[in-house]
Amino acid sequence: MTDVAIVGASGYTARELVQLLLRHPGARIRVATSRQDDAPRLDAMHPSLAGRIDLACRPFDADLVAESARVAFLALPHGASMAVTPELRSRGVRVIDLSADYRLSDPKVYADWYDHPHTDPSGLDEAVYGLPELFREAIPPSGLIANPGCYTSTSILALAPLVSRDLIGRSGIIIDAKSGVSGAGRSPKLTTHYPECNESLSAYGVGRHRHTPEIEQVLGEVGRETGGGAPVEVIFTPHLVPMDRGILATVYAEPKGPVTEHDLMELYREFYKACPFVRVVGRLPSTKDSAYSNFCDLTVRVVRGRILVIACLDNLLKGAAGVAVQNFNLMTGHEETTALF
Amino acid sequence: MTDVAIVGASGYTARELVQLLLRHPGARIRVATSRQDDAPRLDAMHPSLAGRIDLACRPFDADLVAESARVAFLALPHGASMAVTPELRSRGVRVIDLSADYRLSDPKVYADWYDHPHTDPSGLDEAVYGLPELFREAIPPSGLIANPGCYTSTSILALAPLVSRDLIGRSGIIIDAKSGVSGAGRSPKLTTHYPECNESLSAYGVGRHRHTPEIEQVLGEVGRETGGGAPVEVIFTPHLVPMDRGILATVYAEPKGPVTEHDLMELYREFYKACPFVRVVGRLPSTKDSAYSNFCDLTVRVVRGRILVIACLDNLLKGAAGVAVQNFNLMTGHEETTALF
Amino acid sequence: MTDVAIVGASGYTARELVQLLLRHPGARIRVATSRQDDAPRLDAMHPSLAGRIDLACRPFDADLVAESARVAFLALPHGASMAVTPELRSRGVRVIDLSADYRLSDPKVYADWYDHPHTDPSGLDEAVYGLPELFREAIPPSGLIANPGCYTSTSILALAPLVSRDLIGRSGIIIDAKSGVSGAGRSPKLTTHYPECNESLSAYGVGRHRHTPEIEQVLGEVGRETGGGAPVEVIFTPHLVPMDRGILATVYAEPKGPVTEHDLMELYREFYKACPFVRVVGRLPSTKDSAYSNFCDLTVRVVRGRILVIACLDNLLKGAAGVAVQNFNLMTGHEETTALF
Amino acid sequence: MTDVAIVGASGYTARELVQLLLRHPGARIRVATSRQDDAPRLDAMHPSLAGRIDLACRPFDADLVAESARVAFLALPHGASMAVTPELRSRGVRVIDLSADYRLSDPKVYADWYDHPHTDPSGLDEAVYGLPELFREAIPPSGLIANPGCYTSTSILALAPLVSRDLIGRSGIIIDAKSGVSGAGRSPKLTTHYPECNESLSAYGVGRHRHTPEIEQVLGEVGRETGGGAPVEVIFTPHLVPMDRGILATVYAEPKGPVTEHDLMELYREFYKACPFVRVVGRLPSTKDSAYSNFCDLTVRVVRGRILVIACLDNLLKGAAGVAVQNFNLMTGHEETTALF
Repeated sequence: MTDVAIVGASGYTARELVQLLLRHPGARIRVATSRQDDAPRLDAMHPSLAGRIDLACRPFDADLVAESARVAFLALPHGASMAVTPELRSRGVRVIDLSADYRLSDPKVYADWYDHPHTDPSGLDEAVYGLPELFREAIPPSGLIANPGCYTSTSILALAPLVSRDLIGRSGIIIDAKSGVSGAGRSPKLTTHYPECNESLSAYGVGRHRHTPEIEQVLGEVGRETGGGAPVEVIFTPHLVPMDRGILATVYAEPKGPVTEHDLMELYREFYKACPFVRVVGRLPSTKDSAYSNFCDLTVRVVRGRILVIACLDNLLKGAAGVAVQNFNLMTGHEETTALF
Repeated sequence: MTDVAIVGASGYTARELVQLLLRHPGARIRVATSRQDDAPRLDAMHPSLAGRIDLACRPFDADLVAESARVAFLALPHGASMAVTPELRSRGVRVIDLSADYRLSDPKVYADWYDHPHTDPSGLDEAVYGLPELFREAIPPSGLIANPGCYTSTSILALAPLVSRDLIGRSGIIIDAKSGVSGAGRSPKLTTHYPECNESLSAYGVGRHRHTPEIEQVLGEVGRETGGGAPVEVIFTPHLVPMDRGILATVYAEPKGPVTEHDLMELYREFYKACPFVRVVGRLPSTKDSAYSNFCDLTVRVVRGRILVIACLDNLLKGAAGVAVQNFNLMTGHEETTALF
Repeated sequence: MTDVAIVGASGYTARELVQLLLRHPGARIRVATSRQDDAPRLDAMHPSLAGRIDLACRPFDADLVAESARVAFLALPHGASMAVTPELRSRGVRVIDLSADYRLSDPKVYADWYDHPHTDPSGLDEAVYGLPELFREAIPPSGLIANPGCYTSTSILALAPLVSRDLIGRSGIIIDAKSGVSGAGRSPKLTTHYPECNESLSAYGVGRHRHTPEIEQVLGEVGRETGGGAPVEVIFTPHLVPMDRGILATVYAEPKGPVTEHDLMELYREFYKACPFVRVVGRLPSTKDSAYSNFCDLTVRVVRGRILVIACLDNLLKGAAGVAVQNFNLMTGHEETTALF
Repeated sequence: MTDVAIVGASGYTARELVQLLLRHPGARIRVATSRQDDAPRLDAMHPSLAGRIDLACRPFDADLVAESARVAFLALPHGASMAVTPELRSRGVRVIDLSADYRLSDPKVYADWYDHPHTDPSGLDEAVYGLPELFREAIPPSGLIANPGCYTSTSILALAPLVSRDLIGRSGIIIDAKSGVSGAGRSPKLTTHYPECNESLSAYGVGRHRHTPEIEQVLGEVGRETGGGAPVEVIFTPHLVPMDRGILATVYAEPKGPVTEHDLMELYREFYKACPFVRVVGRLPSTKDSAYSNFCDLTVRVVRGRILVIACLDNLLKGAAGVAVQNFNLMTGHEETTALF
């Protein structure tokens, strides 16, 4: 049994984490923290948890967390995570950070995209990018996991086989991505006000969404040994879709040589054969079929000489809390799928 | 051609008013006001108006409005309307107030339900309740129209024939009402944050929604001559439904004597025969069939000795901006349906 | 480990059953049947099950089911269940029937509401109504469970404490119920065609929905010892709400004497204290907080002398597949909550 | 006043046509036809039309239509339109065909994509492609208008300025398009069954959607004088989005030389300056802002050397019934915007 802490308990990701961990035979939630002063109960913040857990949030205190928990899940805004992570690491707590703070290995790139300097560069050295399908070996021993972004996981899982085998050109890769609204978090704003975004569809953050450098960095690592190690450059266009959950990425890449759908499908099946949460499917996937699960569904097509990969997952689970628990399982020696099926 | 002003232009009701008035051959929008300092254009506030109107908002100024317009539509929060109405009336501007400020004739009742005193009781004396189906005679000469609430119009149109003919008991009338989210206005808050209210249904304001006294007051007037003039008492339960527009009220009333569905349907058809916007229908109405229109659809059933009336309308149109234009038409001598079909 | 069969695997209820049973440590799905000739795999019918179960459907065959399974879940249309149940019972298979076929104890009432005669009246004698909150003792030994309807469970759980203590009048009870669209099943029709029911709300089946006699029968049993054993008569009005899942019932009842909200809340807490899936909550419940769970959330209010009970649950889980597994747990000696938290 | 007929009145497009034409001062609906035998009234088929039009459908009869109407709007499935068009044309009726039957000028291409031969090739010679923004001169005298497809109009309006000025490469143009569900028509099927497509997103018809050749043909005409007259080749990927109305296309094209966002925006403004229904906007457009209108909103971006054009419109209006009325206006000498603002 591993005692765990939820640091930053008020958002959707934290709620999903709690739901998963309550189902986990090897995890026990011992502490939850929140900036709210009045020590709200978890089930007051998240009424769906009523009858499931009897725990009040406390203000963050590194000693408290270290006394109670061996692993801390950080569901904090970026910037806040790197403020508390060194305190937890120095007390021996293993950290799974769901923010963006430890995802970009170069602090300058972080500063460029997040508009503030990185305050824990040594943490960056320690951090392991928590996408188990690609970094399965590095995760178990790690003390600091940078849990990937939701758009990022979808995009990387869609492209990794092609990049690792050097089958496609590395610039001009188009990722047309679509997300449900829960990806925007729980703070009310006009763009996520129901009468504004319901029955509407729009692109946003065109050319400047912060998951762009994360996708490029990880795919660059995936393709380091091939293609002359050339960097990967993507055109990433996110869209907001009137639904709660789900991300679907439609990826367009230019093959370096002739390819067939059949061979590509074989490649993907082979590439992911040891990955219980990636389903390479023949049909065109629907977000609904992976919603409320930790699966990523994907398929490949060839249209007029271009490769199309269509991938989808649940942004709150495989894109956030689910993969966090998957990382937890690997870190603590549980079956990878524990609490996730 | 009547020059008009939109006072308080940032909300959904104002946007709908502008859309309708742009289609109106006898109205010209001359001025729009907003509390925002930077003189935003109407189509910056409401992108759907792009290419349709070239007008920047100005801060409210009674002289400005009076110089430019003969009729002012007030799309302000309650409290704000009664602050500007006397200034406009004293300058001869006719006012159609879409807030609640002039709907309750008794300032004490207003103070009880709105938690602040009424500051313009003489305005209350002047105001005419703007539900044309019931007060068709009083509206044309009026200088101050209290435009009805959306739940209110639905409920009153459902019950008026029964109350006016004294066919039902006057207490214990149940109005189970359901509304789309645009009825909650345009200010973001947690309850109308998309991932909270999408795919969800709940009751709210049980026993204390502010449309309750309005419904009772108007039905009381409708039934003043009958039933010994007894007051009307309703149990009003609003629900929030995950859709943009539409209110549906399911009304349960106890008949005083034997009734048949056929006779009641006849009564309703007769009662509303001169009302172009009330459709007494045989089928069970769907909000979608009256959405984006100024119609109120309703039907009557008898179930186990109880009378059920089911009525629906578009909360932003027949429940707000549409009936405002209907009142404008009556006040300015236009055909009642102008710009509304 | 109990071997189970899913008879009628193509609908939403069957899919949810499979999802729950795959998580159940004491159940193993051995056979699934379908009328489709081509032996479709479960994950071809339900793509969300890909990677989770490797099973092809077979045509129904009582011997096959009896050889493979000790318990059969019947997710068939009404009429079809009573055709196969005697065959299964005679072979010793315990049956949990999710159709309506064994819910009404009087075959004449069944014939009246379902427009065909009941062909297995002896099965009616054997059947136990599977609402564990009320019939906890009768379920474990039973060989034939009539799994309750979704509207029915919501309504009965809302009213049982009041009826059993004889606190309310037994006629004129109003149940204004609202359901998501999955309750209508998986067969496409115009009323559930997306552009028809999305963004729309309507009542349907007013005065003639088939859950009416079921509600009345079970509440009649609940109140047999009190109130002179008078029958219970409800006015049940279902509405279709544009969301996938969830039922919310707003119930209006007339108290026989003075009541307070506080006392009623205490009564409900007491009544359901041993029921892990009923949450008596202070807030007004939202369907979303019980969606994807086996909980029923409810609260009580007193408004102008009337008692309001507002109850909600997930129609596919607590209203169908979840309560079926809850019954299975009771029948097979598992913890009641197994696979349901 | 022009008398018109609606041929094929049961679908969403026909309903929208009726709504627009009822508002048109120069059109009078004289006849509506349907395959249904029982002469259903228009408002029985479309309850939203109750109180607006008193007309029963009749079976199609070319003589009847020709006696009653000068212009016929054909809202029929493909295949059915070309069966009746010659009969109407030979009787002097001008036809606006909303099906695909006259959109592809080469009958062989039609046969390839629609799986049946074209039966009226001489009609193809007569037909004018009814996209007023591009073919403004040819429409007024025409007797047979091929009203464009909804995806097609969005895609063509997004790309026409670039192709006509030969600014982009003509192959490998990516059109990632997203549509609301009403675009799938009114016939219920599993893919548009609410619980299947609500809260879900998926691609469909990848590489084989029938609007592909239409887009390529029209853009080929637009670029005939430039670029060596090379054909245009697009990769068109449609997606189904859980909303009623709206199409948004995200288009990716490779510029032939250096370009700036500013210059491209100027080009688009200039190109569409005489087009009242195309709004070139600075913001990223949302489908909701053009929903229930005849506008197409679009904007241009340059991201990492690629040109992105994002365009949206209401598939039932600017994508079908609205542009049909726009064509009607041009054909009958009305102001282009009549009944459409």
